[in-house]
Amino acid sequence: MKFRRSERLVDMTHFLMNHPRELVSLTYFSQTYNSAKSSISEDLVIIKDTFENQGIGTLQTLSGAAGGVKYIPKVKKEQAEEFIGRLCKLIADPERLLPGGYLYMTDLLGDSQILNEVGKHLASAVADRDIDVIMTVATKGIPIAQTVAHHLNVPFIIVRRDNKVTEGSTVSINYVSGSSKRLQMMSLSKRSLKEGAKVLIVDDFMKAGGTVNGMVNLLAEFNATVAGIAVLVESEFPEERLVNDYISLVELSDVDLKEKRINVSAGNYFTGRTEFL
Amino acid sequence: MKFRRSERLVDMTHFLMNHPRELVSLTYFSQTYNSAKSSISEDLVIIKDTFENQGIGTLQTLSGAAGGVKYIPKVKKEQAEEFIGRLCKLIADPERLLPGGYLYMTDLLGDSQILNEVGKHLASAVADRDIDVIMTVATKGIPIAQTVAHHLNVPFIIVRRDNKVTEGSTVSINYVSGSSKRLQMMSLSKRSLKEGAKVLIVDDFMKAGGTVNGMVNLLAEFNATVAGIAVLVESEFPEERLVNDYISLVELSDVDLKEKRINVSAGNYFTGRTEFL
Repeated sequence: MKFRRSERLVDMTHFLMNHPRELVSLTYFSQTYNSAKSSISEDLVIIKDTFENQGIGTLQTLSGAAGGVKYIPKVKKEQAEEFIGRLCKLIADPERLLPGGYLYMTDLLGDSQILNEVGKHLASAVADRDIDVIMTVATKGIPIAQTVAHHLNVPFIIVRRDNKVTEGSTVSINYVSGSSKRLQMMSLSKRSLKEGAKVLIVDDFMKAGGTVNGMVNLLAEFNATVAGIAVLVESEFPEERLVNDYISLVELSDVDLKEKRINVSAGNYFTGRTEFL
Repeated sequence: MKFRRSERLVDMTHFLMNHPRELVSLTYFSQTYNSAKSSISEDLVIIKDTFENQGIGTLQTLSGAAGGVKYIPKVKKEQAEEFIGRLCKLIADPERLLPGGYLYMTDLLGDSQILNEVGKHLASAVADRDIDVIMTVATKGIPIAQTVAHHLNVPFIIVRRDNKVTEGSTVSINYVSGSSKRLQMMSLSKRSLKEGAKVLIVDDFMKAGGTVNGMVNLLAEFNATVAGIAVLVESEFPEERLVNDYISLVELSDVDLKEKRINVSAGNYFTGRTEFL
């Protein structure tokens, strides 16, 4: 069966969206659609232009025998500004205030559309880095890790605060949570992380950076390296943070329980970044 | 700016894939692309045919003033057979055996590509039902719930076995785990679920059905109703299950620790189902 251009464009868009950062050979498309490579190349030009114009991402073309095409998720700066602005408004809702100055964020971490955007935006900021796996800590980090992993097309692993028989043998460390100064334990299944892996650490919230720093220390136990740190919300912290190099979408600067006011602004997402479409 | 057909097809495919089960008016597309509704209608015929031929899903068209188009995720029966067969092989790997006859599944629950397929297959089996929200229990149910929620375009909520300050006020129940007969607690944030909501319960693993049944009881506390139950793996259980009406992708019938053999086969996914493309 021979595919028409219109059919190829629909199916290739679906395929590329489901395989970000994966090198797909022109031969694969040519055989799948029983079409000449020259036609496939023309299709890819149309897809690339549309992806870039519409803020979906870009296509990287590698020529030569081992060549092919890679879909790289990217966003436009205006899209990111619009989305982060919307997130800030959502988070600033005084209804979120809980006793002790905590914020209720569970609805955002379970909203498919918002999560998809969070994943797309964080992924596109690190899409050019060499990343083998995403790491997060249970429970609230999981949705963020999963959506970033989806958009980067890599697996994700979950550090736990308990020990479960279904994890097999684990490596555990103790760490000091940065703001409460409490000693805590975190553990990771031994077989879930390969030696030498390049790991993007992801979490929903970072204050002093104690939990993230715990994950950095845990990685050292596996001889794995940090490829980056990305969080949804960073909270202002008066002392020196345990972690310096990270990306945040939103910054929480102040919670006034008495006045019922939550001050949020864009995180460091735009600082020094040039990856926009 | 006017869009050409080829550009519209690429962008509409991207848009529809990101908004499953959402009614999109022809006016929206017509304005977005500055194109006549008749052209948009022709585009949608091409997309529908390609989605159906390639096993992506289908488009439902509603005519009239409030009309529009809805992308419904669907799979072909052959695709499902291929994918579930592949899952069975992966799960039957004797390397998964842990002390006590438990299975290591963490790698599968963190594999973006497999999760995406699991979500697509489970979502397509229930895509025609009226579902407001997905519910699961921490920790291992979360990745399944999130991917099903993504493909159904609904939020998901997480039942916890502990009480966290960041959940706000919670409703807790005690339940008896079906196989170990131990009394356990589960709790759900009060504001995470609206009265009367239609809820799809999702989990990674079900044996006697105690945990799933606990979630059913928890729903009653919220005056919410069960719209369905979907699990990745069901395990053979000699006694009567606490839960009858559910969908499973894979059935685990027997684990032989001594012979290092894991017997798995397709779950009830194909039994009486007609939703395939």
